[in-house]
Amino acid sequence: MQIGMMGLGRMGANMVRRLMRDGHECVVYDINSASVAGMVKDGAIGAASLEEFVAKLAKPRCAWLMLPAAITGRIVDQVAALMEPGDIVIDGGNSYYHDAVDQAAKLAVKGISFVDVGTSGGVWGLERGYCLMIGGPDEAVKHLDTVFATLAPGADPGSNPPKDAGTAPYGYLHCGPSGAGHFVKMVHNGIEYGVMAAYAEGINILKSANAGKRDRTADAETSPLENPQYYQFDIDLPAVTEVWRHGSVIGSWLLDLTAGALKGDPTLAQYGGRVSDSGEGRWTLKAAIDTGVPAPVLSSALFDRFSSQGESQFADKLLSAMRYAFGGHVEKPKTGA
Amino acid sequence: MQIGMMGLGRMGANMVRRLMRDGHECVVYDINSASVAGMVKDGAIGAASLEEFVAKLAKPRCAWLMLPAAITGRIVDQVAALMEPGDIVIDGGNSYYHDAVDQAAKLAVKGISFVDVGTSGGVWGLERGYCLMIGGPDEAVKHLDTVFATLAPGADPGSNPPKDAGTAPYGYLHCGPSGAGHFVKMVHNGIEYGVMAAYAEGINILKSANAGKRDRTADAETSPLENPQYYQFDIDLPAVTEVWRHGSVIGSWLLDLTAGALKGDPTLAQYGGRVSDSGEGRWTLKAAIDTGVPAPVLSSALFDRFSSQGESQFADKLLSAMRYAFGGHVEKPKTGA
Amino acid sequence: MQIGMMGLGRMGANMVRRLMRDGHECVVYDINSASVAGMVKDGAIGAASLEEFVAKLAKPRCAWLMLPAAITGRIVDQVAALMEPGDIVIDGGNSYYHDAVDQAAKLAVKGISFVDVGTSGGVWGLERGYCLMIGGPDEAVKHLDTVFATLAPGADPGSNPPKDAGTAPYGYLHCGPSGAGHFVKMVHNGIEYGVMAAYAEGINILKSANAGKRDRTADAETSPLENPQYYQFDIDLPAVTEVWRHGSVIGSWLLDLTAGALKGDPTLAQYGGRVSDSGEGRWTLKAAIDTGVPAPVLSSALFDRFSSQGESQFADKLLSAMRYAFGGHVEKPKTGA
Amino acid sequence: MQIGMMGLGRMGANMVRRLMRDGHECVVYDINSASVAGMVKDGAIGAASLEEFVAKLAKPRCAWLMLPAAITGRIVDQVAALMEPGDIVIDGGNSYYHDAVDQAAKLAVKGISFVDVGTSGGVWGLERGYCLMIGGPDEAVKHLDTVFATLAPGADPGSNPPKDAGTAPYGYLHCGPSGAGHFVKMVHNGIEYGVMAAYAEGINILKSANAGKRDRTADAETSPLENPQYYQFDIDLPAVTEVWRHGSVIGSWLLDLTAGALKGDPTLAQYGGRVSDSGEGRWTLKAAIDTGVPAPVLSSALFDRFSSQGESQFADKLLSAMRYAFGGHVEKPKTGA
Repeated sequence: MQIGMMGLGRMGANMVRRLMRDGHECVVYDINSASVAGMVKDGAIGAASLEEFVAKLAKPRCAWLMLPAAITGRIVDQVAALMEPGDIVIDGGNSYYHDAVDQAAKLAVKGISFVDVGTSGGVWGLERGYCLMIGGPDEAVKHLDTVFATLAPGADPGSNPPKDAGTAPYGYLHCGPSGAGHFVKMVHNGIEYGVMAAYAEGINILKSANAGKRDRTADAETSPLENPQYYQFDIDLPAVTEVWRHGSVIGSWLLDLTAGALKGDPTLAQYGGRVSDSGEGRWTLKAAIDTGVPAPVLSSALFDRFSSQGESQFADKLLSAMRYAFGGHVEKPKTGA
Repeated sequence: MQIGMMGLGRMGANMVRRLMRDGHECVVYDINSASVAGMVKDGAIGAASLEEFVAKLAKPRCAWLMLPAAITGRIVDQVAALMEPGDIVIDGGNSYYHDAVDQAAKLAVKGISFVDVGTSGGVWGLERGYCLMIGGPDEAVKHLDTVFATLAPGADPGSNPPKDAGTAPYGYLHCGPSGAGHFVKMVHNGIEYGVMAAYAEGINILKSANAGKRDRTADAETSPLENPQYYQFDIDLPAVTEVWRHGSVIGSWLLDLTAGALKGDPTLAQYGGRVSDSGEGRWTLKAAIDTGVPAPVLSSALFDRFSSQGESQFADKLLSAMRYAFGGHVEKPKTGA
Repeated sequence: MQIGMMGLGRMGANMVRRLMRDGHECVVYDINSASVAGMVKDGAIGAASLEEFVAKLAKPRCAWLMLPAAITGRIVDQVAALMEPGDIVIDGGNSYYHDAVDQAAKLAVKGISFVDVGTSGGVWGLERGYCLMIGGPDEAVKHLDTVFATLAPGADPGSNPPKDAGTAPYGYLHCGPSGAGHFVKMVHNGIEYGVMAAYAEGINILKSANAGKRDRTADAETSPLENPQYYQFDIDLPAVTEVWRHGSVIGSWLLDLTAGALKGDPTLAQYGGRVSDSGEGRWTLKAAIDTGVPAPVLSSALFDRFSSQGESQFADKLLSAMRYAFGGHVEKPKTGA
Repeated sequence: MQIGMMGLGRMGANMVRRLMRDGHECVVYDINSASVAGMVKDGAIGAASLEEFVAKLAKPRCAWLMLPAAITGRIVDQVAALMEPGDIVIDGGNSYYHDAVDQAAKLAVKGISFVDVGTSGGVWGLERGYCLMIGGPDEAVKHLDTVFATLAPGADPGSNPPKDAGTAPYGYLHCGPSGAGHFVKMVHNGIEYGVMAAYAEGINILKSANAGKRDRTADAETSPLENPQYYQFDIDLPAVTEVWRHGSVIGSWLLDLTAGALKGDPTLAQYGGRVSDSGEGRWTLKAAIDTGVPAPVLSSALFDRFSSQGESQFADKLLSAMRYAFGGHVEKPKTGA
């Protein structure tokens, strides 16, 4: 079927490729005209403006947006303004599900369906397929079924999902009304933060398994290492993460990627350790807070990212100021870590 | 080759089966004679006592122990007392790596090698193979190579690990001197706690996505739900965990198992939510503390287990007592959850 | 001066008493007419309806509301509807500061000032005075200065705050425009949660200092206590919290109250450990998340309260289900704690 | 009475001064002979060596040690070697209570009493008195009663503690057998970390209350600030911490110190935010882990200190590496914070 794709960044471009490969017709638009030209070369129908983009879509128009969360809302409004009853806007970005709930209500008044699709799979989706978490009205979601089926990974090789298992074994799922897709994707990413942090913390502990070999100052500001004999291991991090991939309880795709990264450079020298967060982790926490659900692991993972961005510095200065005030403790200078 | 196995619980028995399947000769012992008899029926050589167990082993004797951490130390001593220089004791249980370091030193004096093998794979190991994290002297570890190769899953089908990749791609790894195996397994389990908790918290948030549909008391002791319109989703937990298995970033074996459990019963009614911890999570935290490595996610996961066992109750009573003291706040009675 | 007080619960009634004691005239209203009657007996001017309440106020009317957060917004609207330009509505409850920002904007259109006053001091405020954190337009706040001065504790005995120190040493502070008062009070309560939890966790650890005397099961589901000889202390909790009140770094009013509660009953048998939270802790976390500020301690304190309310149970069931799935681990039954 | 003091750092020197002020005779020793000379000028009896120090003590000798935890054990051994049955060694430093338990057992064999005294009060103790948490044999503790009474703050002015209230209202407490004093002090400091962090996090949130005024990049790596209108407050941190000191629920000595520090410099420019930890926080956590008591707040406070020392960097690099691997996300460069 025909589908319009607006936003040809990493994700959008690959989705278009995967769709065209499977025979779908794609109308594409991006503010970066070079991105459009690239896609056209690959077989897509290009548009030079938002207006042209909508105009080139066959009715009922299906416009899929893959844009940064910060601008999605505005663009949805612009696209919807050019649409007619029966048309469908799909937001496949990492938008806040609140916006999906609100947008859907607004567009419903005009007879336009709003479908929110949480999309996981990253840069690997082109090859592996994307896991799709979908929210929206039944009819619109059904209309897009072949698009979802193409983008999703499909059933596992050799598996034969029972008829009544629905689409989940194929990698896409209608999760509920508008907003439900982004809600489920939001929680997915919240979990992702937690899982990533679990690996990162554990591997960091492995890395310090040789702490007993290091010299340690013996002053009142330094906690002594009680039993250095138990910290004499030089752990081969690439090898350990590799072995965990084979038969261990913590095998996962994130572990596969971690092992690969450490194999490339066990010191990860190219990274500074400044970890971005792109919204979903925050929103997941807010949902937990709203509904009174404890989420200590997910919040710890999020807050570590904030700290990695330098945001705990003033709090830490306060701690040093208190320590100085009650105990005369003077901060130790930073040593080469 | 021949290998002795002592402790025929869930793990030990399956490891014997996997070893025998691959042609190894197994001498087995357990305080439960029925367990021994069962293994003998399957082809193992049984022993009726510790002494007989050691006596039936060919030199150099290789005695593998799969026992609860609490008793392993004592049994290692008993086995070692019956052994001779050149023999090897292998501890495949979830023992504290400190004990491995100490035991190895003690046994080395007598010329006996101590090999600690962290073993992951659970009840699935018989079929999938076990991921093995090994610590100990080079020679002893080399001597046991075929045993490790049998127990481990082996290389991924179709993969062809390069010669210099070592044994990790086959699912077993010599991690360092005695203690290194249990150290790496300990951290593995610490990570496992964190990963499990990340899923559990996220799914718990999904479950509360319909909180806006529930009635809510409007009193000074209850925080109002600000925007009930955003919490109107009835999420199908088995379907969502299933769809995440296909192409999402958080795909993992633990997710596979979670989806399976939820498919069996979405309410998990058979469980009470009292989560045990068996030592490694605690030890991982202690290692983090000793070496000054932050582990907020792993500790949050551990502490939630403690809380699930009722251990935060007195702290919570203190909070209620303080609230009463400063604000006259009276505890709300427990309502049917 | 004259001030109207609506909401004669614990807080409101005591504030009226403190105001009248200092010579202020109080017009009072509550949906519970008995509360009004009680205050009238103490010298207040009673009102039988919202309309009468507003009618009895001299211009410019100053109506102070002490109501549950869940209903404050609605009542502010009703009061404001009866008011005229130049009048002032004061919200002294634990409302969300977002509402204050929004209400202030709405009321400003009608020429009515909205002053939000975060009020700390609990049931002790009548005697000790209330700490007041104030947001609102300069003129309105200035107009209410004598009211704030009466409600606040005043300067420490013997202290002589310098002229340029402002009102903070007297226990009240104009923190900024409308919303700033509730914002500062919100964070105050967020901190309160963290401080309370720090004491509660520590005292809970003291309570378990005799863990080495207890029997402990030695099975694979129970982590062994390595060194029972270090956990042989029966700590006298009332005495320890009392001694900490004298010269220690952690002396505080909350510690005073805690010591008092433990002296009354060291087992706190009257409490079940179900700790309510009334909004500010949640909002503090949301502010931290919005602004990217790490708040691991404050969030841990909040999530423990959620857990105490039973909200981690499904997550814990999931953990048990995973443990059963990979390791065949069966939950231990609950034993008498 | 006579008491020997070894270790004339910040704490030891002030304790000697406070003791001499109250008429006690002090024999003093320090490896730094200038420190000894200074104390002698103030009226103490100096010693030039450990041997001379012990020799100058009257029997039963009472030697109080105020030394860094890392060297205390060694010095206790040296002092005890010069002592006789009936003598008393007092460790007033921040030693691990495990050591106290072990030392006490060792010294008991020689008839020497070991008394461990947790000492809180910091540099203010000279003036305010020290809060003393004492472990050791009854007789030895009783023998030292006047020393403890002098060092402690004494009863609150105007208070008249009842006879059966024991010594706690005077600021010192015999908490149990050897080790109990350091155990209680350890938990005291664990709590201290949590309380400090609660204030620091909250104040950091206040500081960011103007986040809505700052520019914010709109890209896929930056989470948008949804409602900038709610983050327009420029909070006066010195004034707010000052007002909280008067009548609020979170009034405390640490808050007094914090307000003082912020009054001195609201930006705390002299600090870098590298917060040391000196052992007790770590040990408190280990005790919580050993005994299965949840301590999420205390651990979060500890781990933040580790992070402030740069110890989360490798974990954070791993997170960035994973994000790059699955999503092609490139780390944002550090901007001037």
